[in-house]
Amino acid sequence: MTKQATLPQTRIISLRYPASQKIYLRGHLYPHLRVGMRAIHLEDPEYPVYYAYDTSGAYSESEVNIYQGLPRLREPWILSREDVERLNRFTSDYAQRMYEAPPSTAFPIAYLPLRAKPERTVTQLHYAKAGIITPEMEYIAIRETQRIEAYRKAGNRFPRFHAGQGWGVSIPEEITPEYVRQEVAAGRAIIPANINHPEAEPMIIGRGFRTKINANIGNSIVSSSIAEEVEKAVWATYWGADTLMDLSTGRHIHETREWILRNSPVPVGTVPIYQALEKVGGKPEELTWEIFKETLIEQCEQGVDYFTIHAGVRLAYIPKTLDRVTGIVSRGGSIMARWCLAHHKENFLYTHFEEICDILRQYDVSISLGDGLRPGSIADASDEAQYAELRTLGELAKVAYQYDVQVMIEGPGHIPMQLIWENMQKELEDCHERPFYTLGPLVTDVAPGYDHITSGIGAAMIGWFGTAMLCYVTPKEHLGLPNKEDVREGIIAYRIAAHAADIAKGHPAAQWRDYLLSRARFAFRWRDQFNLALDPEKARAYHDETLPAEGAKLAHFCAMCGPKFCSMEITHQIKALAAEKGISEQEAIELGLAERAEAFRQWLP
Amino acid sequence: MTKQATLPQTRIISLRYPASQKIYLRGHLYPHLRVGMRAIHLEDPEYPVYYAYDTSGAYSESEVNIYQGLPRLREPWILSREDVERLNRFTSDYAQRMYEAPPSTAFPIAYLPLRAKPERTVTQLHYAKAGIITPEMEYIAIRETQRIEAYRKAGNRFPRFHAGQGWGVSIPEEITPEYVRQEVAAGRAIIPANINHPEAEPMIIGRGFRTKINANIGNSIVSSSIAEEVEKAVWATYWGADTLMDLSTGRHIHETREWILRNSPVPVGTVPIYQALEKVGGKPEELTWEIFKETLIEQCEQGVDYFTIHAGVRLAYIPKTLDRVTGIVSRGGSIMARWCLAHHKENFLYTHFEEICDILRQYDVSISLGDGLRPGSIADASDEAQYAELRTLGELAKVAYQYDVQVMIEGPGHIPMQLIWENMQKELEDCHERPFYTLGPLVTDVAPGYDHITSGIGAAMIGWFGTAMLCYVTPKEHLGLPNKEDVREGIIAYRIAAHAADIAKGHPAAQWRDYLLSRARFAFRWRDQFNLALDPEKARAYHDETLPAEGAKLAHFCAMCGPKFCSMEITHQIKALAAEKGISEQEAIELGLAERAEAFRQWLP
Repeated sequence: MTKQATLPQTRIISLRYPASQKIYLRGHLYPHLRVGMRAIHLEDPEYPVYYAYDTSGAYSESEVNIYQGLPRLREPWILSREDVERLNRFTSDYAQRMYEAPPSTAFPIAYLPLRAKPERTVTQLHYAKAGIITPEMEYIAIRETQRIEAYRKAGNRFPRFHAGQGWGVSIPEEITPEYVRQEVAAGRAIIPANINHPEAEPMIIGRGFRTKINANIGNSIVSSSIAEEVEKAVWATYWGADTLMDLSTGRHIHETREWILRNSPVPVGTVPIYQALEKVGGKPEELTWEIFKETLIEQCEQGVDYFTIHAGVRLAYIPKTLDRVTGIVSRGGSIMARWCLAHHKENFLYTHFEEICDILRQYDVSISLGDGLRPGSIADASDEAQYAELRTLGELAKVAYQYDVQVMIEGPGHIPMQLIWENMQKELEDCHERPFYTLGPLVTDVAPGYDHITSGIGAAMIGWFGTAMLCYVTPKEHLGLPNKEDVREGIIAYRIAAHAADIAKGHPAAQWRDYLLSRARFAFRWRDQFNLALDPEKARAYHDETLPAEGAKLAHFCAMCGPKFCSMEITHQIKALAAEKGISEQEAIELGLAERAEAFRQWLP
Repeated sequence: MTKQATLPQTRIISLRYPASQKIYLRGHLYPHLRVGMRAIHLEDPEYPVYYAYDTSGAYSESEVNIYQGLPRLREPWILSREDVERLNRFTSDYAQRMYEAPPSTAFPIAYLPLRAKPERTVTQLHYAKAGIITPEMEYIAIRETQRIEAYRKAGNRFPRFHAGQGWGVSIPEEITPEYVRQEVAAGRAIIPANINHPEAEPMIIGRGFRTKINANIGNSIVSSSIAEEVEKAVWATYWGADTLMDLSTGRHIHETREWILRNSPVPVGTVPIYQALEKVGGKPEELTWEIFKETLIEQCEQGVDYFTIHAGVRLAYIPKTLDRVTGIVSRGGSIMARWCLAHHKENFLYTHFEEICDILRQYDVSISLGDGLRPGSIADASDEAQYAELRTLGELAKVAYQYDVQVMIEGPGHIPMQLIWENMQKELEDCHERPFYTLGPLVTDVAPGYDHITSGIGAAMIGWFGTAMLCYVTPKEHLGLPNKEDVREGIIAYRIAAHAADIAKGHPAAQWRDYLLSRARFAFRWRDQFNLALDPEKARAYHDETLPAEGAKLAHFCAMCGPKFCSMEITHQIKALAAEKGISEQEAIELGLAERAEAFRQWLP
């Protein structure tokens, strides 16, 4: 593959939502903070603006040259803490070679890495435990609040969570910086924020906050190029991905990741064992702790914000998977299982877990404890292998906490609806309320080609029940690697699931968007409907298929019923009669009735 | 619009699923019954066939000439009961005029209608109450069973319903003809089966059975033709619609419906007030009971299987909708509300409800009690207007039961996840366990263009909780009329929701399909995966985008990870080692371990 084919052709990317403007809110504890939000301007006479949570960073404000990368937002915050030092070479020999003799596919700018000074720990958990509210925490509090205060007055329109039913969690009334700190200190939320990925805007993963979604990207040996992956990454944040995972397994893993990191406004996760496996020619039994450790440090110094570590795949659990319908389906899980069997040894990620924590605390890389034994089919759901691993993940989470390393717990997979609640409860109990990060779950196996929907159902439910981040599934799942359009379909399906969960959790800013969109619908403000939609372009395109004229954007009808009759008109007519006569709407109805409806009848079409 | 443009161009339709064969199971009580199922042939050495519930009637067996219509399957059963008579003219003058001087758009063959003999009632409910098991009931028992006996042995692989959690319903162990009769007699299930629609295969709507889905089709003044609607109808049954609703509101309503009825292998529902409104020039206040009654009889004699009747929109409830965000969004509800206000009178569908029942019992048309005041936005969910109407629907259901008229209850709409359970419980309580038939519900308002997904989430949940039929929503909802591709997307999304609900209800035939597909996935039988998928064409097309070669259908990898590594291989290798050595799989693992894994290492790739 030539350089021309591999690297991005387009240098400048700018992604603007219609009728939207990037605005920045200032901090109080840290007045220099500029927290980006997307203001959606509306034609609503009472509510001219909605403030949307924005994951697309600088792309939605200005033009970004992806050959230069994003502004390094957090760098001054990190340096000002005076607990890090810039190394004069990469600790990993592999990375150092790349630095000294960059291949033609390398990102054009190289940064030497930061690392904690000796004996220092630079994780957000460390600061939180020490009672320190970091700029990251205040940034998150402002971002999460989504200007809730603007929405309070409509609270009575919003069905709140029914606590009596005993399920779900609720968003607090106030998302303060101190609340953020407390949740992080308790291990109930994490802020993935590698000191070497200062381009990312701070965000939080925890069930007391807005539900997050992750988009997986990355190439395989069969398909994709750096250009495609960078494009998918940037567009994914435009459509609403809160984090990205680069799951590349093919060639150019190091360079692909560098391109993504330098251009990603959201945290980036990886599965380091994938790259380690490539380094040993794809033979799991040739993996060693040393090769893995080298890869881990390489990625820490590049800026990866969280690592999936399959440390729970213990030797003793592997026989539990033999009677399964689909055996082991996690790629990382399968790699480690092979290693265990080939060497008759305990998983080296388990035995070296404390060393892993000791490395990660120096860069503030969070751990996503991988569910290497997750069920790959409805028949295998909630079996002993899955739950045995979950309990081990809970033990490891405690170890990480001692090292001040932030942890979340990965979850399934394929789970029928009636077992979703049980899965969430077991995770909370066995893993001490660490944030749950699930792949779906898919509630049936029978719809390849539509697994963004089968899994979106499970994701919405488990999100409501308390899962903090939902890993998307695209329509291509089980069939092939997603292209850009598949990424879009997967992300929107998951934004729907996460938003539905936020409504069920009672998040007022979430419900406000539904409220404004429905107001627009009722008032036939078509442009507002499009602009408030999760995917404005598609909403408009679908409408325009039958009624393309610009005038139809003001019409009091759509193609569903046609111009002669619209259900919603009657309420408008009652209101219009009331306005004309200067009476209440109730009186308007009575007037119509009292005069044998003659007055009212005039108001019918 | 000319005749050429309006009528179907294609005369012959045949729709075959890949690797599928139409098979017919015989009855026991009624040996002449031939119950159509779809046998999906598999390459699975242990399980060479899966029997799928088939909604596509004769289309999946042979070529159907849509200018002649489907075979009139049920006609001999109906006539043999000797309680009906064939009229020598249509009771409705409108229909009689169409019969005597058919317009150029008319269906080519006309049938004079059947009606109950004087003093007779010909509904399935009437027979069920009398202790009679009809051929329709046995047909349904066989169809619903889906050869469950073939699947019993795998029962321990299937996570059953967790009764202790206190939610959901379960499918009985045995679906016998007597069970069908009992459920119908109790009003907990209905069999929509107009004596004038003998082309439809018997099916049942009740929560103790397989969850059903409905697809709405029909033109509006803005768009569509007879040809398009017939094509949508036929393809809808191919993709899996259990019933169709013809919601046409434009021109040629009578003829469009005739074309659909004569070619529909599933029950067809309508909203008769839509056609009545067209007859009075679109002016709701000019509607009268007489015009409505005439339309009702016209449609009874044409063969419509169920009517949505908005009899619960009472005058007193209309003011309750004034403070809503989206007012009244049901088209039928809005029509009746206007009529009530314009005349200052109680809804004539309510005041004439007993007469309606008295007509319908002569044709066995079921009533779908319309939720004219359903919420059209999250903010309006579960409000007093909605629940007041629901209680009235419960009262009307009791009245219909006295007339032996089968009834189901329509439900919302837009409901956030945390209120879905409450909605289901209220329906069961207030409406005496009559089958619930919901439109979604949509769990958020913010995703126009993706409302098949927002509503599929709610549909899966409420299906599990006990809703008997899920009315689909297409991606075009709120934006325009669906085209054929939108119908496909909507139906597959709802087949997913219904199937997920059936799994959660513990239906063994449902879970068997997941089991077989996952077995195929694990064994890399790609063709079986495609053929068992709800949409085989799409699954295959997505796979082939990256690996189009026919050889890839046997490959032990896909484009997700590429050929060098597949997670699932490890379990295969353990099994292969066991087979070669003639030992158990557990021993194979031990062997690998005992010999310092040398033996096992050979088996790694």
